Amino acid sequence: MSRPTLKDIARRAGVSISTVSYALNDKSTLPLAEATKNRIRTIAHELGYVPNGLARSLQARSNRTIGVLLNKPLTTPRYAEIAQGLSVGLARRGFHLALLDGESADRCIDDARGGLLDGLVFIGHDDLEVPHELAVDIAGHGIPFVALDCGPARAPHVWSSVDFDYAEGVRLLVQSLVLDGVTQIVHLRPDVTSRADRTRVDTLEALARQNAIEVMAISTGITDETLARLDREPRRSLEYTTELIGRLDAALDQVTQTSTTAIVCSWGVDAEPAYFWTMQNAPHMRVAALAGGSLDPRLWPRLTYSRLPLAAAGEACAGLIIDASTSRDSPTRVLLTPTLDSGAADPLAALD
Amino acid sequence: MSRPTLKDIARRAGVSISTVSYALNDKSTLPLAEATKNRIRTIAHELGYVPNGLARSLQARSNRTIGVLLNKPLTTPRYAEIAQGLSVGLARRGFHLALLDGESADRCIDDARGGLLDGLVFIGHDDLEVPHELAVDIAGHGIPFVALDCGPARAPHVWSSVDFDYAEGVRLLVQSLVLDGVTQIVHLRPDVTSRADRTRVDTLEALARQNAIEVMAISTGITDETLARLDREPRRSLEYTTELIGRLDAALDQVTQTSTTAIVCSWGVDAEPAYFWTMQNAPHMRVAALAGGSLDPRLWPRLTYSRLPLAAAGEACAGLIIDASTSRDSPTRVLLTPTLDSGAADPLAALD
Repeated sequence: MSRPTLKDIARRAGVSISTVSYALNDKSTLPLAEATKNRIRTIAHELGYVPNGLARSLQARSNRTIGVLLNKPLTTPRYAEIAQGLSVGLARRGFHLALLDGESADRCIDDARGGLLDGLVFIGHDDLEVPHELAVDIAGHGIPFVALDCGPARAPHVWSSVDFDYAEGVRLLVQSLVLDGVTQIVHLRPDVTSRADRTRVDTLEALARQNAIEVMAISTGITDETLARLDREPRRSLEYTTELIGRLDAALDQVTQTSTTAIVCSWGVDAEPAYFWTMQNAPHMRVAALAGGSLDPRLWPRLTYSRLPLAAAGEACAGLIIDASTSRDSPTRVLLTPTLDSGAADPLAALD
Repeated sequence: MSRPTLKDIARRAGVSISTVSYALNDKSTLPLAEATKNRIRTIAHELGYVPNGLARSLQARSNRTIGVLLNKPLTTPRYAEIAQGLSVGLARRGFHLALLDGESADRCIDDARGGLLDGLVFIGHDDLEVPHELAVDIAGHGIPFVALDCGPARAPHVWSSVDFDYAEGVRLLVQSLVLDGVTQIVHLRPDVTSRADRTRVDTLEALARQNAIEVMAISTGITDETLARLDREPRRSLEYTTELIGRLDAALDQVTQTSTTAIVCSWGVDAEPAYFWTMQNAPHMRVAALAGGSLDPRLWPRLTYSRLPLAAAGEACAGLIIDASTSRDSPTRVLLTPTLDSGAADPLAALD
């Protein structure tokens, strides 16, 4: 296939190549009769002329692409929702999202320095913050950069960031449970040394003291070591679920006041087996999670999620990274608050 | 920040700029002493030289990026799993995945012709196949292209494709239900004119006749019109769930043999409200879906999914699009078979 060139258009229009170039370039300041410009543009359109995208990018020093370092699979709903928010936010601004899955930091830096990527967004998780070497390269080469869910930076801010207010999420959930008459919380949490989970534990303990609530901590058995393996599985293994239910069963054996007790899961994924356990053993016990889970809380009664505003966080990152790539404003920090999602309605009751 | 140039390296090494260029170009056939080459490369490394990525791409006529036209949000688990498979498959081959969410076909074609994208992957759904205008542009401009889940092409194949064997998925599920003693199937399906669902209905009816199974069709109430609205909602609306449960309740009022009846949902998302209904009304009734759903079938008894191999489909697309962008082999069609996912174990029974 041979692509029409400026020369082809010039020949057809009976003008010089540079006149064609002026006519097709929006930013050209050269005076050119509107009629001539339109005639040349019409011919270019008829011939199917497309400016060479790479050459155009080279000139504009922009590839209209933002690289997203997502170190977790999209099959984890949390990361799919963030990526979706980013994608929508970038598309609205005329940018593509490039997923840099399993990419080495070196190559990202090369691609950003080389102009293939206009900026990088780093998605943190658990205790993964911006790696030191990446931070050094970002700062050293002045690469537009935004960090999501990495917590307050230790060094002075050199980039913008978006974070979740985990403490406020716990506070809102505990407040709603207290209003519902809950006096005992069974806190089901992984043995993972994550910043988010340390905040959850500290906040929950402080709130328990304030509200005279008894907190019983149960480990799900998940450690940093087992986590990496579970991440690679599209669906959680049966052993994990069985282990969790066994631990819940042993711990809750001692609980008698099931209607004033709530199971609060640190992770959304744990709410499904916890709820399953209550259906068989304690049908009045509330189940809550400090993130969204798979069961629909508008369908299943006694279930509440403190949902992280994941799509909004992705959209906020999209805005901040475009700002960072086009201007040199000082970095900003956006802090987003979780919202409660609780099933008030009962679809079956409505039928009676 | 000023980026070191070939000139800076040449000055430091005391050689000409073209010698530096030869030394740094892997594909150069010019004879150059290995020692000189290594010395120049070491200096380039020390100075932090990075070849201009865009300029390099322009020369190689490759941006190492594949555009994926995903017309559905990543928050739908089905599309997240496909995108994850694609991302893994492309990363393994050194390519980026660019999400072209909400992108107009024109701009995709421009980006592919201009070299910003090395190829396009189109993800179909319901009755969305490759739009005619896109197909014409793809063929006319010889753009590397792969279609996923678009069904057999009407025109002679000009591109490779990956599809799911929906009929075989129905056959495997019905076979397993018959082995479990099911004699009546309540087929819960949307009023959506989708190719996949027409195949499901036709196959189910043919199998029912063969196996003397009674099939009762119930519409979920979802039409092409309401579908677009539901897609934009991160979580299905309560009205949808209430409507579905109401229809199920009315239709199943007449069913008496609940232990030999199974609800088979065309869509995975409908299995959760259907299962919820059985828990309250028919605790022995089997629930199945012709795609994966949110409830874990290894936790909840009586639940079976015929899962589409979504990640495998994404990975297959990654391989085919790289093949299409690097060689001119004739197009191939890959057909993937769904697999059954059924909860055999009972985590609570294991505790007793």
